Amino acid sequence: MEELRKMILEQGQGIGADIVKVDIFLNHRIDTKLLFAMGKVWADEFRDEKPDLVLTVEASGIAMAVAAAHALGDLPVVFAKKSNTAVLNNETVQAEVYSFTHKTQNTIRIERRYLPEGSRVLIIDDFLADGQAAHGLLTLCEKQKATVVGIGVAVEKGFQPGGKALRDAGIHLKSLAIVDRIEDGKIILRPDDD
Amino acid sequence: MEELRKMILEQGQGIGADIVKVDIFLNHRIDTKLLFAMGKVWADEFRDEKPDLVLTVEASGIAMAVAAAHALGDLPVVFAKKSNTAVLNNETVQAEVYSFTHKTQNTIRIERRYLPEGSRVLIIDDFLADGQAAHGLLTLCEKQKATVVGIGVAVEKGFQPGGKALRDAGIHLKSLAIVDRIEDGKIILRPDDD
Repeated sequence: MEELRKMILEQGQGIGADIVKVDIFLNHRIDTKLLFAMGKVWADEFRDEKPDLVLTVEASGIAMAVAAAHALGDLPVVFAKKSNTAVLNNETVQAEVYSFTHKTQNTIRIERRYLPEGSRVLIIDDFLADGQAAHGLLTLCEKQKATVVGIGVAVEKGFQPGGKALRDAGIHLKSLAIVDRIEDGKIILRPDDD
Repeated sequence: MEELRKMILEQGQGIGADIVKVDIFLNHRIDTKLLFAMGKVWADEFRDEKPDLVLTVEASGIAMAVAAAHALGDLPVVFAKKSNTAVLNNETVQAEVYSFTHKTQNTIRIERRYLPEGSRVLIIDDFLADGQAAHGLLTLCEKQKATVVGIGVAVEKGFQPGGKALRDAGIHLKSLAIVDRIEDGKIILRPDDD
């Protein structure tokens, strides 16, 4: 997506070998105009799959899920909550997510009734790196017998294995920008294939 | 706001003396149509104050801040991050927020450059109870010499002191619905004064 690519190149910072800092417009301060343009791209990509809800995980996925849901005719958004303690009860479905960034194991959970059996789910998130968060959300859908119609992410780290694994598994994945590598603090994007 | 009041009465649950459970449409599953209608009400309330950014705190305030910012012509949204560790550096401004619900002290923080001196800030959040989160956000603005033009919340717990304290301090506060009390699991709203 051209607007996002432009923002990443102009305002993003590459730090070390693998940190893509884009919190000036994506996940701390949010450029709302860009956000809703992103929502429209995901909506165009996934409309024909007839999703009936948009699923994400708190916190930074929420804004993007809302934008996509709005562009799809105001679908409901459900966001998984993070919790360090395993709260086990019948009303909640859970999955484990390991964060390589924070070196922590998180439990993500959803009230079962908000992810009904047979739902057609579009997963949206801000980043895709090793794919742990995506796999956690896929696990929640599988446990609930919901159908994942696709995954939309804003920024894929193409040098980490998450994107390839999802595509190899036959999942319809739309990344709005793919970072190929970071060189001397500069973010190098993979050519846009749209 | 009539649509929100209706949803609270029809779908909300009162638990014990003070828990207002509305996560079926507000802060776990999000009714996106209602969300954007709420954003318009806040925008109408605060447009004349000429805010130039919308500030909230992760996680459940984000969707509402995005809706308000969108209705105000796609203003930027900034959300404070929660952290249990005090990360002290020059680039970050912080405030302490005590959560009565979780009995925990949280540090909320923002990169200073995302809340510039002289900004005109509209604060948006999902709940106002004892006012701790609002005061944390006010503190961040004060430290950054930003002007708070008003506070919009979705649900105010009228039986807790936060709302009164903010009004007494002369802050322009717009609560879309005010819960008067909970009686036998039933949520009783204060009459709408709009």
